[in-house]
Amino acid sequence: MKNASPTIDKSRLRRLVEEANRFGFNGLTGGHNRPGYSDADMAVRDWFAGEMMRAGLVVSRDGVNNIFGRYGPADGPCIMVGSHLDTVPEGGAFDGVLGACAALECVLAMQDADVVPKTGITVVATAEEEGRFGGMLGSQTITGAVTPDWLEQAADSDGISLVDAMQDQGLDARAAMDSGWQPGSIKAFLELHIEQGPVLEGAAIPIGIVNGVSGVCNLHVRLDGIANHSGTTPMDMRADAFAGLALFANTIPELIETSGTSQSRITIGKVDLIPNTAHTIPGTVEFSIILRDTSEEVMRRLRDRAMENVEAAARSHRLDCAIDEKSWLPPVALDPALRSLLRGESERLGLAALEMPSGAGHDAQTMQAFCPSGLIFVPSRGGISHSPQEWSDWADMEKGAQLMLNALCKLAGT
Amino acid sequence: MKNASPTIDKSRLRRLVEEANRFGFNGLTGGHNRPGYSDADMAVRDWFAGEMMRAGLVVSRDGVNNIFGRYGPADGPCIMVGSHLDTVPEGGAFDGVLGACAALECVLAMQDADVVPKTGITVVATAEEEGRFGGMLGSQTITGAVTPDWLEQAADSDGISLVDAMQDQGLDARAAMDSGWQPGSIKAFLELHIEQGPVLEGAAIPIGIVNGVSGVCNLHVRLDGIANHSGTTPMDMRADAFAGLALFANTIPELIETSGTSQSRITIGKVDLIPNTAHTIPGTVEFSIILRDTSEEVMRRLRDRAMENVEAAARSHRLDCAIDEKSWLPPVALDPALRSLLRGESERLGLAALEMPSGAGHDAQTMQAFCPSGLIFVPSRGGISHSPQEWSDWADMEKGAQLMLNALCKLAGT
Repeated sequence: MKNASPTIDKSRLRRLVEEANRFGFNGLTGGHNRPGYSDADMAVRDWFAGEMMRAGLVVSRDGVNNIFGRYGPADGPCIMVGSHLDTVPEGGAFDGVLGACAALECVLAMQDADVVPKTGITVVATAEEEGRFGGMLGSQTITGAVTPDWLEQAADSDGISLVDAMQDQGLDARAAMDSGWQPGSIKAFLELHIEQGPVLEGAAIPIGIVNGVSGVCNLHVRLDGIANHSGTTPMDMRADAFAGLALFANTIPELIETSGTSQSRITIGKVDLIPNTAHTIPGTVEFSIILRDTSEEVMRRLRDRAMENVEAAARSHRLDCAIDEKSWLPPVALDPALRSLLRGESERLGLAALEMPSGAGHDAQTMQAFCPSGLIFVPSRGGISHSPQEWSDWADMEKGAQLMLNALCKLAGT
Repeated sequence: MKNASPTIDKSRLRRLVEEANRFGFNGLTGGHNRPGYSDADMAVRDWFAGEMMRAGLVVSRDGVNNIFGRYGPADGPCIMVGSHLDTVPEGGAFDGVLGACAALECVLAMQDADVVPKTGITVVATAEEEGRFGGMLGSQTITGAVTPDWLEQAADSDGISLVDAMQDQGLDARAAMDSGWQPGSIKAFLELHIEQGPVLEGAAIPIGIVNGVSGVCNLHVRLDGIANHSGTTPMDMRADAFAGLALFANTIPELIETSGTSQSRITIGKVDLIPNTAHTIPGTVEFSIILRDTSEEVMRRLRDRAMENVEAAARSHRLDCAIDEKSWLPPVALDPALRSLLRGESERLGLAALEMPSGAGHDAQTMQAFCPSGLIFVPSRGGISHSPQEWSDWADMEKGAQLMLNALCKLAGT
């Protein structure tokens, strides 16, 4: 006998999130510290596995410490649902943990309603999503995207290798190679996440249905001029590396307007002057350009034009110029059928929803290469994330979780 | 009986400069290291005192280790001539040391020609000109410009106090207060220095006659926006502190064109972003603006307009803005009669000379507050200074020294 349709228990969801956040919490800053393979990261996973066991799920973990809990039929392909439990250093209260806890809450709500799905549901807490060693290690392991070479060379910013960090926790990094799932074993993947940007809050819309994840191009630029005395060198005889950078930086708005889209983002986040003293004309500047768009063609155009503009700015200030493309991640479009299903379920729930791209990377984009994947956003207050100030309203998170639950019931069959 | 008119001995001048440069020389870099009150600085002064004693000058030193050598009449006012022997860390071969050695060479050349001046000539090697503790300590001591408060608080960039540094060398900093010269005791001051800029080389003129020293205004600016994820935050919802700086930096050329002169210099030499990571929109930037001109009125206009432009750039990027005027040194005009004398003597020598301002500070500007002061420049190759690459041609330095010698003979009477 079935009760009413499964409904999220907001208090229980909140309790799960708050219990998870006891791991790695810094009471002085309000920040959460569960970098991949830290003690706090290992402990929160053990706790999560325990919560799933208490709910009667069949719990397992793989070589990289992805935690799985299966509900419903033990055999056959599953619908996978979840997110990550690791955080950046001094991270916020919801980035990742909301999605993992909401996935478990969906199963608990189905159990409350005596709903057993026709297709098995696998709740997942993915490993090392945030990038201590590069990010997305858990989802890349599931999809078989990890290579032995990468495993061997991965290291964190302190120079600790992935192999050593995992070994310290009793894990063998090479087991990642044996932890890929069989093709067809996952029918769909769903993830709930905070937006980490200001778009939904600005539009006063509680739900984002992500249509794709922006690609990222990472350029490193070095401009070399001549360091010299700020008093003795006339303005027209300088080769001022910072003036070259400033000239380029001011071309960015026009560059996006003429060659980009509303989804284009170009950021100069890191700038290092040499010698960086007040009374000396900067001889050298090194800086980063992070360039994103949801279209790879637009990304290529923006990159080419940005490089032309850097070169032109360098020439006009008599600077040598070296541009190094450090990485290129293409954009990923998420599954159209799943987007359509999420739109329909939002409408049924009476929830306003915005189709939107994600500027940040998520496990769902990795999973999309393996199976149809869907990503639901809820608003972030002030658009702030990766910070103790990160916040989302519980009412919005409940709505997002309910949408995921309804979609899950549709996908798994009840 | 007099010989031919006194003539600089280029070989002897070169030997003096090269011997001085053995002190504090770094063979690995080619740099010279004689910061004020370092062992090398103390040693080069002892050597210089010895050279002057060998030449029969009456040698003395004052409380801050200015070294004096008097030639000619022992009593009455003197003509003072010289420069500094200290260097910046890894400094060049001629900045300061040329002027001190050329001053001694002028006296040696007068002795060669059996010329005894009617007015005493005092060769000086001034102390701590380069700024380990702020700069110009030697000339400020002579002119009585040093205050007890300043002496007590002065410290180098490692936090070593002037008082301690001098005490380590057996000197009492407080003696600076008792080392001022009596008004009228110096009739005129002459200094020969390398230009440290590219103007003379660019004009192919061997002699610069300095008409004034630019004033310097030092502004410190902090712009505060919001640090956020470079992917999730749309361009039009950012408060990007670096974008605000770039917008301001690009107003500098127009600012000088409309409110400045050919002597105006505006330099952004130090820039610090927070958090300074590639994937984060810069939340905060702190930067320096060093602003110079030979007219104090122009300086005021440039400062006011620069502050307006900073504020406008901050507004257009939604940034908070704080501007702190850290220091204001007014411009100094050097003595017109001495400039005229130097012009006349250059013509007599058949040397092309350019009347020009100095963008860098020199002892002559401190001395001008006490007595008529003159400053002669010789070209710097590539305009480079404060660097092992600093270079000037010996032929040019000989010409500059000869001009100083002729002017000295005129001033002292022979």
